[in-house]
Amino acid sequence: MKDSKDSKELFKEFKIQSVSEFFRRNAAMLGYTGKIRSMTTLIHEAVTNALDACEEAGILPYVRVEIEELGSEHYKIIVEDNGPGIPENYIAHVFGKMLAGTKAHRNIQSRGQQGIGISGAVMFAQMTSGKATRVITSTGGDIIEAWVMIDVEKNEGKIVKKTKHENPTGWRGTRIELEVKDVRYIRSKQGPYWYLKLTAIANPHAHIELIEPDGRLIVFPRSSKEIPEPPVEMKPHPKGVITDDVFRMAKKTRRETVKRFLIGEFSRISDQRVEELVRYIAALRLIKKEDKNRRKQLLERLANGEIDIILRSYGKKGKQALRAARKLIEKEPAKLTWHETEEIVEAFKYMKFLAPPTHGLRPIGEINIERGLVSILKPEFVTALTRSPKVYRGGVPFQVEVGLAFGGNIENGFNLLRYANRVPLLFDAGSCVTTLATKSVDWKRYKVDDLESAPLIIMINVLSVHVPYTSTGKQSIASEEEIYEEIRLALMEVGRRLKRYLSGKHRKLYVVKRRKTLEKYVDEIAKALSVLVNEPEEEVRNYFVELITRKFEEVETEKVEEVVMTSPGVEEVNEESE
Amino acid sequence: MKDSKDSKELFKEFKIQSVSEFFRRNAAMLGYTGKIRSMTTLIHEAVTNALDACEEAGILPYVRVEIEELGSEHYKIIVEDNGPGIPENYIAHVFGKMLAGTKAHRNIQSRGQQGIGISGAVMFAQMTSGKATRVITSTGGDIIEAWVMIDVEKNEGKIVKKTKHENPTGWRGTRIELEVKDVRYIRSKQGPYWYLKLTAIANPHAHIELIEPDGRLIVFPRSSKEIPEPPVEMKPHPKGVITDDVFRMAKKTRRETVKRFLIGEFSRISDQRVEELVRYIAALRLIKKEDKNRRKQLLERLANGEIDIILRSYGKKGKQALRAARKLIEKEPAKLTWHETEEIVEAFKYMKFLAPPTHGLRPIGEINIERGLVSILKPEFVTALTRSPKVYRGGVPFQVEVGLAFGGNIENGFNLLRYANRVPLLFDAGSCVTTLATKSVDWKRYKVDDLESAPLIIMINVLSVHVPYTSTGKQSIASEEEIYEEIRLALMEVGRRLKRYLSGKHRKLYVVKRRKTLEKYVDEIAKALSVLVNEPEEEVRNYFVELITRKFEEVETEKVEEVVMTSPGVEEVNEESE
Repeated sequence: MKDSKDSKELFKEFKIQSVSEFFRRNAAMLGYTGKIRSMTTLIHEAVTNALDACEEAGILPYVRVEIEELGSEHYKIIVEDNGPGIPENYIAHVFGKMLAGTKAHRNIQSRGQQGIGISGAVMFAQMTSGKATRVITSTGGDIIEAWVMIDVEKNEGKIVKKTKHENPTGWRGTRIELEVKDVRYIRSKQGPYWYLKLTAIANPHAHIELIEPDGRLIVFPRSSKEIPEPPVEMKPHPKGVITDDVFRMAKKTRRETVKRFLIGEFSRISDQRVEELVRYIAALRLIKKEDKNRRKQLLERLANGEIDIILRSYGKKGKQALRAARKLIEKEPAKLTWHETEEIVEAFKYMKFLAPPTHGLRPIGEINIERGLVSILKPEFVTALTRSPKVYRGGVPFQVEVGLAFGGNIENGFNLLRYANRVPLLFDAGSCVTTLATKSVDWKRYKVDDLESAPLIIMINVLSVHVPYTSTGKQSIASEEEIYEEIRLALMEVGRRLKRYLSGKHRKLYVVKRRKTLEKYVDEIAKALSVLVNEPEEEVRNYFVELITRKFEEVETEKVEEVVMTSPGVEEVNEESE
Repeated sequence: MKDSKDSKELFKEFKIQSVSEFFRRNAAMLGYTGKIRSMTTLIHEAVTNALDACEEAGILPYVRVEIEELGSEHYKIIVEDNGPGIPENYIAHVFGKMLAGTKAHRNIQSRGQQGIGISGAVMFAQMTSGKATRVITSTGGDIIEAWVMIDVEKNEGKIVKKTKHENPTGWRGTRIELEVKDVRYIRSKQGPYWYLKLTAIANPHAHIELIEPDGRLIVFPRSSKEIPEPPVEMKPHPKGVITDDVFRMAKKTRRETVKRFLIGEFSRISDQRVEELVRYIAALRLIKKEDKNRRKQLLERLANGEIDIILRSYGKKGKQALRAARKLIEKEPAKLTWHETEEIVEAFKYMKFLAPPTHGLRPIGEINIERGLVSILKPEFVTALTRSPKVYRGGVPFQVEVGLAFGGNIENGFNLLRYANRVPLLFDAGSCVTTLATKSVDWKRYKVDDLESAPLIIMINVLSVHVPYTSTGKQSIASEEEIYEEIRLALMEVGRRLKRYLSGKHRKLYVVKRRKTLEKYVDEIAKALSVLVNEPEEEVRNYFVELITRKFEEVETEKVEEVVMTSPGVEEVNEESE
């Protein structure tokens, strides 16, 4: 191997890349793929940031999006909100540093998560137009105007120009202006117009405006003045953690014992549960020593809750095991070994816990979904259902909401509006659990004979701190069994409501038709009868008209309202607290 | 808005995440999704590193993979190579720091690119088993044994234990041992066995061994002793760059003028091309000032190569524009503005360049593909075709290779083996350009009546410095038109070869059948004729046998060989040099 290079020579080229550099090369990972989708991604990142900021601050959002065409495939995108504003010293970080943000490290339901989105947009603008992003923001004091660029090699934001302006009116909010190329504005179902329309439906408390490149102003007005409760951080549930999570948390905690650590930093773990944990750890240690068949048998019995019988059957050895296991929970958390952490997580699998708290989940709510659908779509019938929270994979809370709108201004042809934490999903519909569950429902049973051609719109919102996306594009939700079932149940219920409505409507239409038929014959019958009974034709006629009127009166009074809304009011959402 | 939070309070939570932390949360982005796929990803990362290292160093690879089952969904994965080894002071970086490596910043065809793969594997092991990865390596001197963990919060490798051993035999190479949980070994088409089998087919110069968890040893022996040429870095082609690339390169270069920069750092740019560039920039500047219709017309003419006529038509103004444009190429590169860079890149679009150099692409080669297919699949017919390199999107060189194996030990049922830069692609086959192109071919024309049930295997290898993957999983190649067409052309050619073979085979089978039919009647005819011609039956019979033998002799001598290989030798691959 005389010709082979040695490693010194090869490692001369060894270099470290910044995360910005990585995403510059892999912009598709962030949704920048194709001219239309890239445009939608930019709008999405800016609007998501605006809505999250308002929500966290408890402000009714007012979001204005303006798209100016500067040339061929060359645009300026302006997004302005009335959020809390960004403190001056955070501007460079928020817009110029990837993986920096307020959310990634907290167990919280929010639209954004990673702290990549908006800096990704700034980078995309810079990559395609060479221009800095203009940020105008105020937290109530001076208005800061800053031009931000990203130093890709260092993953750092650079403010290339900054001006302070007085703020006599005390304006708060943020406006960003991105200049981009290689994107295209189209009014298609994958473009900004549709994206904002869907956003408005799922956020009836937000006022959203769009000025299209041709100057057309589109307003999606606020249809609810309720500010959604800001999301709260949720402690992890014992069934939703892996060993690595617990191990890392234990290394960081300030609590003094494993017991205190478990009770304090997880949900649904009480003193009593920790006592039980000790018993399970002891039992599992004993069982692990048995031969294969016996072990299998005992583990099955343990899963059936026979912990007491099992421990008792070990007699004195059982008591020793309990004493040893108790030592584990009295340790200092930082001294927990990986193996001990594994024992804890394994025991969790056999134990029963209350379902995770869901007070951190923030559904749109039935009345708000109906408001959103009515105000944007103007249907003749609308209904919505917020299911109570459930858990998937044993410990991850999620919740499903479904809205259904029928007829009225809705054009023929079925449309499914998909959302995750209120964020519209526009791409990769095929593999999404929402699509699969919708297709699995037998719509004929609900008087929808041909789903594809019905004037029907269904919206599905899946809420979770951890939405299980199928891929990094975050455009499709994985088909977790529990989520699939929840969506089906919700769809079947709104389906039944639609059926009831359509049945009523059909009955009424039928009745109106019959009355019209009868009325058509009144004149002829009156003429014939007047000869037979020898009464004036006019009187006989009047008699008949009265008869018909009386017969149909009952039906008439059930007036078909312009929009039928089914929710009695805001549903009481499972307001658990620990 | 008394209740709304102000931004100071909100920004208290602002934190910066490390890239390792990001990928810990998004392990699916790296291919760690599902127990089977995660196992394959681990093997893939380790084997890819081994093969790339050997290739860069010019060593015939010997790769040994051993998978030990330690418990339920708990394995130790050992991968050992005879590569150049890793210098002691790089061990922590290579295995413990993401986005660090020798390849990401170079324009080079290699299996790995990002410097994430192997540290991702180390992280996955640590996340699931809590264990450090054991690395044993030597560059020829001492053998270093190091246990590496990742400090996820800092994205840094930590060596938790290190020992030096003497190396009397001068061993070079690297062995890593990953202990992982939550994975599963299955001998399916998405598991390690199949992955390594496909790797062996595309790397006939590599000796690959696999020891399965049940102890079974599988050897994919080397079938070629040619060491592939190490890949070389390729300069970017003017048609394959965006403004941002050129702008960033201009900021970094040490060359003194834009002209020198363009000639020195791009391929296919000569003094003459720069002169032409000046003319195009001048013409574009003039054209941009025209009204819309005239502009459109002139740009079309420019695209048709009428640059001289256009410039002349501007007379004196044309000459002024030329002088101004010439100043641009005489500037210092660092002083190029974004706008000027855009002008250069736009001019590139109208100019004609030689196709990009392709001396950096490393096809497997026809003879090697055939060797690989024969040694692993044992077919009765094999053929391979390496097309000459082409360009997609105007400036990205790529090359397509196709192999076809038929009959013999191949079971009924069509199989498509997909590769990108020799790396097997096991997932997301549906949307891959290789699948689409294969389906688009009318296989009936090549005597394959029912593709799905034929004993047929086709392999397709797409080579490029930038393989256009459809998603971040890197398991499916986007359907770029030029790539699609190249694959189709290659498939049709190997299809014709298969048809020729099958025709020959059918003819032979037909002849053999006819001879057998004739021979069946020899006795009867001999008996009848012997009466008629009054000769002994035996003689008449012999006469007939001789006649038949002579008639079929010609055919007999074309013996059907056990394996039919079609390549005459290693094809002369377009060995361009600049």
